Amino acid sequence: MGEEGSVGIVETRYWRFAEPPDRVKLRCGAALGPIDVAYETYGELAPERDNAVLICHALSGDAHVAGMHSPDDPKPGWWDIMIGPGKAIDTERYFVICSNFIGGCKGSTGPSSTNPETGAPYALDFPMVTVSDMVEVQHALVCEHLGLERLLCVIGGSLGGMQVLQWAIDHPGAVYAAMPVASTSRLSAQGIAFDEVGRQAIYSDPDWNGGNYYGGRPPHRGLAVARMVGHITYLSDQSMHEKFGRGLQDEGMLQYDFGPPEFQVESYLRHQGDAFVQRFDANSYLYITKAMDYFDLPSDYGSLIQAFRGVRSRFLVISYTADWLFPTYQSREIVRALHANGVRVSFCELESSYGHDAFLLRNPAMEKLMRDFLANCQVDIRRAGSHAPGKR
Amino acid sequence: MGEEGSVGIVETRYWRFAEPPDRVKLRCGAALGPIDVAYETYGELAPERDNAVLICHALSGDAHVAGMHSPDDPKPGWWDIMIGPGKAIDTERYFVICSNFIGGCKGSTGPSSTNPETGAPYALDFPMVTVSDMVEVQHALVCEHLGLERLLCVIGGSLGGMQVLQWAIDHPGAVYAAMPVASTSRLSAQGIAFDEVGRQAIYSDPDWNGGNYYGGRPPHRGLAVARMVGHITYLSDQSMHEKFGRGLQDEGMLQYDFGPPEFQVESYLRHQGDAFVQRFDANSYLYITKAMDYFDLPSDYGSLIQAFRGVRSRFLVISYTADWLFPTYQSREIVRALHANGVRVSFCELESSYGHDAFLLRNPAMEKLMRDFLANCQVDIRRAGSHAPGKR
Repeated sequence: MGEEGSVGIVETRYWRFAEPPDRVKLRCGAALGPIDVAYETYGELAPERDNAVLICHALSGDAHVAGMHSPDDPKPGWWDIMIGPGKAIDTERYFVICSNFIGGCKGSTGPSSTNPETGAPYALDFPMVTVSDMVEVQHALVCEHLGLERLLCVIGGSLGGMQVLQWAIDHPGAVYAAMPVASTSRLSAQGIAFDEVGRQAIYSDPDWNGGNYYGGRPPHRGLAVARMVGHITYLSDQSMHEKFGRGLQDEGMLQYDFGPPEFQVESYLRHQGDAFVQRFDANSYLYITKAMDYFDLPSDYGSLIQAFRGVRSRFLVISYTADWLFPTYQSREIVRALHANGVRVSFCELESSYGHDAFLLRNPAMEKLMRDFLANCQVDIRRAGSHAPGKR
Repeated sequence: MGEEGSVGIVETRYWRFAEPPDRVKLRCGAALGPIDVAYETYGELAPERDNAVLICHALSGDAHVAGMHSPDDPKPGWWDIMIGPGKAIDTERYFVICSNFIGGCKGSTGPSSTNPETGAPYALDFPMVTVSDMVEVQHALVCEHLGLERLLCVIGGSLGGMQVLQWAIDHPGAVYAAMPVASTSRLSAQGIAFDEVGRQAIYSDPDWNGGNYYGGRPPHRGLAVARMVGHITYLSDQSMHEKFGRGLQDEGMLQYDFGPPEFQVESYLRHQGDAFVQRFDANSYLYITKAMDYFDLPSDYGSLIQAFRGVRSRFLVISYTADWLFPTYQSREIVRALHANGVRVSFCELESSYGHDAFLLRNPAMEKLMRDFLANCQVDIRRAGSHAPGKR
């Protein structure tokens, strides 16, 4: 493998579809349209059209997964460590696609978008979206707009991994391989509880105003608290101990007051909260956490084994030792149910002290796994493709 | 052992001390006085004055640890399962004492008490209190007011266990035996982080008003969010799964809206939050969580081994398998440091899926451990006492 590099300067593009009356019917029963989809692509689509890799992002992610938006961009896309020339998801071999899911606030249609019926932001008139709705919109982007029949691989961590599972179930012919990372087939009671605390923090902020704050003061205090509690769940007892311990901001001096943060971990959390509210919409936070809460493959299909009945993709399932939000046992449930359906699945629990956030951090073992899995998939899809009678 | 019973109708009593100018000097440097202490006692003090057991309560506890305040009291004291005739802490054998710690809001002096200098509630003018300050006030109650020289045992879970450790360090001659349960020698970074999220939820509530809400509308929304996040940390992934799973309030029907709670776990959390604000003061929540954050025996004494240098009590240390807020490894640290000082210590990690809250629930193994430990201590203290040259 060559030197690792950046995909360089990239641009977010937009596609609009589902113009009324051709609105998309959502799982909750409502119809949504028009729908804007923000997406980015890197690398080149092979003439065989068999090298497309779709990345599904998590709660606070967006379409900008790699590269820079400008030469002086302070930081690259959210998974730039994984995606680029020579990287684990090698843009010299694969055509990489990432789109912002609906319900979000990063360019795709969500509660902060204009409701065509009123000319004002949807706010809570935005319909509830589910993981399968997110996947339907991605499917339209990939198939209708980008003209692809099949993805080499769909990859995502956390909520992104939920989308991966839904893709493999809803579009078995369009997903050659699937890689759910640090994910689950249904959010746990504890996961729902943490989401609910975040939502309650937002509801409790008078600036939230029942969701009608656009043009006014957004509920930054509530959203910051939601983000703080979220951040604790993304780390681990061990990683917080290693990163902060009981270190003080003003070394050695306890202040014995309720002023500025005394412990480094308090300062970290406040910073995370303050930074988040500058880049995220509180109503989107509500909608996306609800989509996570609703995700429940065993319930939707009668059992997890039933859910995977029609799956034809091969799988690489990855979990992390210190992830207590989406613990390994939840990945094992996925693996067992795939096995029960005769699906070809590899599983690896990776050592990491970093908790759920581990999938966003450099991890040579994870990178090698992904690199090899994708390379093997590409060899196999081409071997199969060259003999396939229906090949165009 | 006989039939288990209730201590019956009990009464909270009050003792006032530290009248100015004899105020108590706190660790933060401030002086506090007068100090009211709310306390309850059950059982009879033996003529030998060697059967007193002090219970130290946790964050949201109070002096009312057993029995009922009236015949139609809807529920008994917070550890009534443990304390009473024939129970693990048998009031036919022991004289049981429990007091509300300072900084609280259950009858002892705290931020909602009247500041004698202003005639108004202290609010944030209340000085910061630490675990050692709480212990000093308990020591005054036990020694000055109740006239005891020595406690047979000091028992407490969580923050109560921190007080147990501090008692054994600060008053080695007054603590024959000590039983810290589900506790730690220093709060972890993760523990501080959860406390800080709770505090930020309170600060963020406009009704908090910098702590000056007495006589007005208290910050119920912020305090409820703090309690909700706290409750998640008191349970466990497994116990939440067993208790609620993904059960719906309106069975089988997702509502797809932001209205009433859809999942049972959401309903539980909202109920816990709503109930808590009716009985707890938000400023006390701030002060008590700070006292927990500040607790750090290794730092206070150079190391945990140093901290226990003068300890003369025997110990029973108990932890619970599914407690992730005060995990077993933190109890093991205590045990190892006690061993290093030649202290007689028994340690037991009890099986329970209930998380940190396990110490508040019935557990036959825990009850047998405590019962036997106390009985052995009483045999030994009497054997030693009858030979002790200084015995009065």
